[in-house]
Amino acid sequence: MARLPTLAVVGATGAVGTVMLELLSARKNHWGEIRLLASPRSAGRKLVCRGEELTVQGLSAEAFDGVDVAMFDVPDEVSAEWAPVAVARGAIAVDNSGAFRMDRDVPLVVPEINPEQVRNRPKGIIANANCTTLAMIVAIAPLHREYALRELVLASYQAVSGAGQVGVDTLHDQLSKVAGDRALGSRSGNVRQAVGDDLGPFPAPLALNVVPWAGSLADSGWSSEELKLRNETRKILGLPDLKVSATCVRVPVVTGHSVAVHAVFGSEVDAEGAREALRNAPGVILVDDPAQGEFPMPIDAVGTDPSWVGRIRRSMDDPRALDLFVTGDNLRKGAALNTAQIAELLAPEFAAR
Amino acid sequence: MARLPTLAVVGATGAVGTVMLELLSARKNHWGEIRLLASPRSAGRKLVCRGEELTVQGLSAEAFDGVDVAMFDVPDEVSAEWAPVAVARGAIAVDNSGAFRMDRDVPLVVPEINPEQVRNRPKGIIANANCTTLAMIVAIAPLHREYALRELVLASYQAVSGAGQVGVDTLHDQLSKVAGDRALGSRSGNVRQAVGDDLGPFPAPLALNVVPWAGSLADSGWSSEELKLRNETRKILGLPDLKVSATCVRVPVVTGHSVAVHAVFGSEVDAEGAREALRNAPGVILVDDPAQGEFPMPIDAVGTDPSWVGRIRRSMDDPRALDLFVTGDNLRKGAALNTAQIAELLAPEFAAR
Repeated sequence: MARLPTLAVVGATGAVGTVMLELLSARKNHWGEIRLLASPRSAGRKLVCRGEELTVQGLSAEAFDGVDVAMFDVPDEVSAEWAPVAVARGAIAVDNSGAFRMDRDVPLVVPEINPEQVRNRPKGIIANANCTTLAMIVAIAPLHREYALRELVLASYQAVSGAGQVGVDTLHDQLSKVAGDRALGSRSGNVRQAVGDDLGPFPAPLALNVVPWAGSLADSGWSSEELKLRNETRKILGLPDLKVSATCVRVPVVTGHSVAVHAVFGSEVDAEGAREALRNAPGVILVDDPAQGEFPMPIDAVGTDPSWVGRIRRSMDDPRALDLFVTGDNLRKGAALNTAQIAELLAPEFAAR
Repeated sequence: MARLPTLAVVGATGAVGTVMLELLSARKNHWGEIRLLASPRSAGRKLVCRGEELTVQGLSAEAFDGVDVAMFDVPDEVSAEWAPVAVARGAIAVDNSGAFRMDRDVPLVVPEINPEQVRNRPKGIIANANCTTLAMIVAIAPLHREYALRELVLASYQAVSGAGQVGVDTLHDQLSKVAGDRALGSRSGNVRQAVGDDLGPFPAPLALNVVPWAGSLADSGWSSEELKLRNETRKILGLPDLKVSATCVRVPVVTGHSVAVHAVFGSEVDAEGAREALRNAPGVILVDDPAQGEFPMPIDAVGTDPSWVGRIRRSMDDPRALDLFVTGDNLRKGAALNTAQIAELLAPEFAAR
C-alpha cells in the first residue's frame, strides 16, 4: 500500500493556521501524520485536526525530520529563516508569506491556473500568492484565456483579518465604542475621539471609515500591497509586461477581500461570453443578477472556497474592456485553502515513491 | 442701497436641507428673506437659520411669489414637478435632484469649474451634480487643465447618508445589532442573521459588509449611479467623448463619499506636478503623506467643504496615467454646499436690478 506523506503545519495557532486545521479536517485526506508547529511559546497547546487532538511542537530544525511537505503560515521573516531549514531536512516547503513570491527560483502557484509549476522548484520552495491577488486572479485567469489580458485597473476593499487576529479584535473593539452613538460619522460626531488612540495594526480608525492604505510604503507613493497585486499577477499569469494599477483600501469588514476590476483585453469582449467563461471556471462562483440583489459580497463569501464574481459589464466606451466585482475569503482561498491545494498537488509524488 | 434677493429652500427639513441651513448661517450672507418650504406635513415646523427662527411653509405655487432664487433639495419627481412652477412664478431654480441634470437646456454647474454656465439657463433651471461626481470632479478638473483628460476608471466607496437619513438610521441600527458579537463576520458568524430583515433602503446589510450597488438598474447591468458618474463628468468638463468606467459600491460609512481614481491623460504626467496643480486648486485640500498616515478619509472629510485628495501616484506602466484617492462630504460639497455656491453666483444679478 502507498505510504501517505507527512505534513507539517507551521504557524498552526495563528488566524490562517486555525482555518487550515478546519480545511484539513473537512477536505479529502491526503496525509499520514500531521504535525503542528508554532513558536516555542505555543508549544504544548492542544488543537484538534481530523478529529484527533494534536500537541503543538515548538519550531526547530529537528521538528522537520520525516516531514514530506511543510506548509508555512507565518510572517515573512519567519518563513525566510525556516522554509530553507525545512527543505534542508528533506521537506518541500509551501510558503504563504511574501518572503519568496518574487524569487525567480520559486514558483508562485494557483492550482486553478498554473498547477504544473509545482514541479519547477529548484529551491524546494513553492510560494502562495497574496490574499488580494488570489481573490481576483481566479476570476481573471479564465477571462485572460478567452480574451487575452492587456491591462488591469484595480481598487480593493480589504477586510481587517488580512492584518491577522489583532486586526479583527481592533475592529470589534472600535465598533463597540461607536455603536449606539447616532451622531458619530455625521458632521457633529467625531469618530477619531470615540475610537481613541488604539488603532491596532492600522494607521487610522476603521469603524465608520475607509483607509486607503495597506502594507508598507514602497517607491513613489505606492504601498507594498499595491505592488504585490501587480507583480504577483504578472508572475502567475506569465505576463511580464501586463499593465497594472492598483489602489488598496482597508474597509470595516471582518473577512472577505473585494476588488473592483477594470480589465482591458486584446480582443473584443462581451458580458455574456465572460459570464459563460466564469460559469465553467474552477474556483469561481458567478453571482450576477443585480435585479434580484445578487452580487458578490463579503458577508456571503466568508467561509466559502470560491471567488464570488459579479457585476460583469462591458465598458461603454471600450469594446475590449470589462468591469466586474470580485469577493473572496482572504483566510481561505486567500491563504489557507490555496496552500492546502498546492500541498495536495504534491501528495501523489510521495505515493509514487 | 441694493436690494438683497429672496431665497427659498425647498426641502428644508431633509438631511441635505438641514446641512443647507447650517451653511446659510455660517457663510457670508447674500440673502434678504430666506423662506423655508417643505411638504405640507412639515408645514408649521420651526427651524433656525442665520440665528432667526423661521416657520416652514407647505410647498405651493403661491409660496414662490417674490422668490428670486429657489433651491431644491428634494427627490427627482418633486423637483420635476415644482422647479418649473418656481420658474413660472419668477424664480431661478437651482436643483439638487437628478431630474434636469442631463437636459440640454439646463446647465450642470460646479462653481470651481464652470461658473460661467449659470448664465446659460434657457429654462430658468440650473442643476447640481450627483454627490459622487462632485467629490471626484473638483480634484479631476485641475488635472484635466494641466494634462488633458482622456479616460477615467472609478471605484467608489459611498456613505449611507447618500441614501438620506433612513440610510444613516439603518446603518446605526445594524451596528447596534452586530457590535459585541465577536464571531460575526468570521466564518462562524452570520451577519445576515444578526442584522435581520430590515435592510432599509439597501439591497443587503451594510454592517461588516460592502455592497457593490447604488441606485437603480440601468442598461446592460450598469447602475444608474454609475451612469451618472459618466454622463455628468462628460457634461461638466465639456468632454462628450470622455471614456468613463465606474463601479459604485456602498460601504459602512455614515458620511463621506470616496473614489479610487485612475485617470489617463493626453500628455505625460508627474505626481509632483499633479500635487502642485491640486495645491493651488479651489475647493481641494491635498493630504498626501502616507509615511505620516496622511491620506483622504471620510472621518476627516465629514463636515468640511473641500474635496480631500491624496495617494497621488504616476502609474508604473503608463506615463500618461495617475492613480489617486478622493474623499468629500456628500451632504456638503456633494449636495448643499454646491447648491449654495451656485445660488451665490446668482445673487449679484439681483443687486444690479
